[in-house]
Amino acid sequence: MSKRALTKLRDELLDLQFKLRRSAGGALVLIVTGVPTAGRSETINELVSWLDPKYVSVRAFGAPDLAERRRPPMWRYWMHLPQRGRMAFYFAGWYADIVPDTRARHGKLASKRAIARIRQLEAMLAADGVAVLKIHLHLDRKTQKKRLKELRADKLTRWRVTEEDRWFADHYATATRIVSRTIRTTDRVSAPWHIVDGADPKRRVIEAAKLLRDALRRVLQSSVAKKKVVKRFAERAAPLLPRTKATSLDDDAYENELGLLQGRLAYAVRSKQFAKRGLVLAFEGLDAAGKGGAIRRIAQALDARQYQVIPVAAPSPEEAAHPYLWRFWKHVPERGEIAIFDRSWYGRVLVERVRGFTSERDWRRAYGEINEFERQLTEHEIVVAKFWLQVSKVEQLKRFKAREKDPLKRFKVDEEDWVNRRYYDAYQAAAADMIRLTDRPDARWTVIDADQKKHARLQVLRTVCDALERRV
Amino acid sequence: MSKRALTKLRDELLDLQFKLRRSAGGALVLIVTGVPTAGRSETINELVSWLDPKYVSVRAFGAPDLAERRRPPMWRYWMHLPQRGRMAFYFAGWYADIVPDTRARHGKLASKRAIARIRQLEAMLAADGVAVLKIHLHLDRKTQKKRLKELRADKLTRWRVTEEDRWFADHYATATRIVSRTIRTTDRVSAPWHIVDGADPKRRVIEAAKLLRDALRRVLQSSVAKKKVVKRFAERAAPLLPRTKATSLDDDAYENELGLLQGRLAYAVRSKQFAKRGLVLAFEGLDAAGKGGAIRRIAQALDARQYQVIPVAAPSPEEAAHPYLWRFWKHVPERGEIAIFDRSWYGRVLVERVRGFTSERDWRRAYGEINEFERQLTEHEIVVAKFWLQVSKVEQLKRFKAREKDPLKRFKVDEEDWVNRRYYDAYQAAAADMIRLTDRPDARWTVIDADQKKHARLQVLRTVCDALERRV
Repeated sequence: MSKRALTKLRDELLDLQFKLRRSAGGALVLIVTGVPTAGRSETINELVSWLDPKYVSVRAFGAPDLAERRRPPMWRYWMHLPQRGRMAFYFAGWYADIVPDTRARHGKLASKRAIARIRQLEAMLAADGVAVLKIHLHLDRKTQKKRLKELRADKLTRWRVTEEDRWFADHYATATRIVSRTIRTTDRVSAPWHIVDGADPKRRVIEAAKLLRDALRRVLQSSVAKKKVVKRFAERAAPLLPRTKATSLDDDAYENELGLLQGRLAYAVRSKQFAKRGLVLAFEGLDAAGKGGAIRRIAQALDARQYQVIPVAAPSPEEAAHPYLWRFWKHVPERGEIAIFDRSWYGRVLVERVRGFTSERDWRRAYGEINEFERQLTEHEIVVAKFWLQVSKVEQLKRFKAREKDPLKRFKVDEEDWVNRRYYDAYQAAAADMIRLTDRPDARWTVIDADQKKHARLQVLRTVCDALERRV
Repeated sequence: MSKRALTKLRDELLDLQFKLRRSAGGALVLIVTGVPTAGRSETINELVSWLDPKYVSVRAFGAPDLAERRRPPMWRYWMHLPQRGRMAFYFAGWYADIVPDTRARHGKLASKRAIARIRQLEAMLAADGVAVLKIHLHLDRKTQKKRLKELRADKLTRWRVTEEDRWFADHYATATRIVSRTIRTTDRVSAPWHIVDGADPKRRVIEAAKLLRDALRRVLQSSVAKKKVVKRFAERAAPLLPRTKATSLDDDAYENELGLLQGRLAYAVRSKQFAKRGLVLAFEGLDAAGKGGAIRRIAQALDARQYQVIPVAAPSPEEAAHPYLWRFWKHVPERGEIAIFDRSWYGRVLVERVRGFTSERDWRRAYGEINEFERQLTEHEIVVAKFWLQVSKVEQLKRFKAREKDPLKRFKVDEEDWVNRRYYDAYQAAAADMIRLTDRPDARWTVIDADQKKHARLQVLRTVCDALERRV
């Protein structure tokens, strides 16, 4: 490539980076993998030096650290996704677990689930406007051996050869098998792999830069072309939600059973088995359905050091700049801990769908993304329980009015609640779809008749206890 | 308290919480400590239920987890400070380490440094508009024993008594000694302790609520009264910075020494001792001083999994809503890791001082806060090195012009850089003050003659190697 052409390429990249920041509609992830001495660091470092480094984060993923091991495997990748308008360059990225895992298992290939998790993540990112560019730097066996030998011969460069590099060189056939199978199973239209020859330092950078340029162009086009959110309401008649008809309870019976259930809960979360697990509870329901009250009855049984209540409202600017589930991944509990969500990731298929805050395309794909999210939690041995607190239209009105009269509860009712109430039927339809599409054997929905507060609180506690006792 | 007075109190609290959110000028931390069965959880839970829980975070600090133990002790408290406009209620808060520590050391009182760290943090928070309200719930020995006995007798409540509770009850004298000494040494005008009798459940909540109300009133008053930032420039003549006069280097000699130094660095950070430590590098200097180039030469010697480069620009809204050092605490490396700051926490006493972005009162207190921050790093065995890259006015102009001509470096010079250049002398004065006031034996400043790029890069590397080799 002539010097002039190179200057033009670098200029284009800078320009595209600038446009990406301005558009604030998309983001880009570049993953570089490769065989030893094929120039992974050199390529990434060179590309970064061509760009404005303030808007590129570089990260290498090695063996997961202690905090990472205490959470589902994809957690650490979620935590470092780039914000809209930015780029992230990763050494290995979410492929970091594949090779070491395969090594540890003596050449047995990575599990289908590990591959499926990656495919799901990449599909979600693509749908969300985050381009994923994957480059594998290749070297033939002879060149690789020669380079390693040269590096090791010189005391100034010997330290560059890691133990992993040596393993790779010594197990060329196995390593090649792992790599080609990984590439084959994760090469998809939305996130394709590119094999670049690492033999010539200059050429490999130029080739990577061109791939980056093309990927940036595509992400800019698609984010410009992205349709505006179309307001659209669920018009279907509200289907009947399954209901357990509640009977009224006297105070003594309630207090007694509440104490017993709290004791059961307290006992279950103090068990040794629970320390290897964790608990995620999601509470959904219309305004004034009694989510807060039910959560407090659970919290009373817990040691404050063990749990967090996460109230979910409109996203902050930082949260809005990340893929939708990012802000929920942030709160995934460590082993032995408890996260209670007062409203949850289901907001996308409830309020955002009903009120038209999100396009139909986006909330429709959310069902699948949510199922995958919860599957990753349960695979990590976290117990997941989800509650829909079903309050009738009449009872809701009664509670709104009572709250407005009470000076201490006034703040609980605002204009927005009254507006939401007008969509009561649409919420019923959305809830029915949600339950139908996201009820899985190990992440069950429980529909609670919330018109009877005491009954509702006891049933929530009972369900949590049952779910825990089955696993610990 | 009459029912009417109680309603009024709760109403006042809600109103103050609302005003706090609106003012967005202050925040509040409530720390509740106490002897067993004095009602810590009950008091906090009750107070939260009186407020809008979306803007109160509740957190209990127990024994530090693995990720926390790998960072300086105050790190976890920094990570959970409330944003402006919000409140955080902590069980034990940063006093969480005092009692267990004392227990582990068989009654020996917490170290002076542990107390000093707390005093520094609280003084910083107060100066920053974050009120710290500390409540200790007390019970006499007899009542405490009686309550524990009752709790343990009933199978519905037995689980509430923890092992720590029993230790406390069994070591009443020691526990009292720890508590009173802690309270005595950390009771300051800016963050006073309040002792509340925990015997009567209703009265203790009301008393806590009143203290909360008064604290909220004070923080609102002071944040309303807070003066606007006064633009003010350092007018002093620029003092001479100490300089090591650089000699020019030919390319071969440079490349050879660069390789040797990178090898030394690579060797040092791969040592077993380094895994127990960590490295923090801070780079400061005017625009075009060559910070990026020096950092890249260091990065070349490192495994990408081991380090992070943190470019520091204007704070994000989330960062601006926290105390100043929060965003740097976020990036404090774990043991064995390396954080390289391209500009740093010294921004407050450089650009913010020179350009008048921060009031004089605030940047003046930053020297002390920064010294404390770095002391906590070095106490945690992190190696800290700081560089001022000194570029002359003539050389800076030359570089600006060269960058503007180069299409690939254009983005590196913007209007802001030219504006900053007009403050060249003020920056010199600010840098001289900074070095004078924050140069400590284990967190040294090195002033680098940055007019000679090669020389500068080698000297930076040499300094880092020397600093590391002294410790590992």
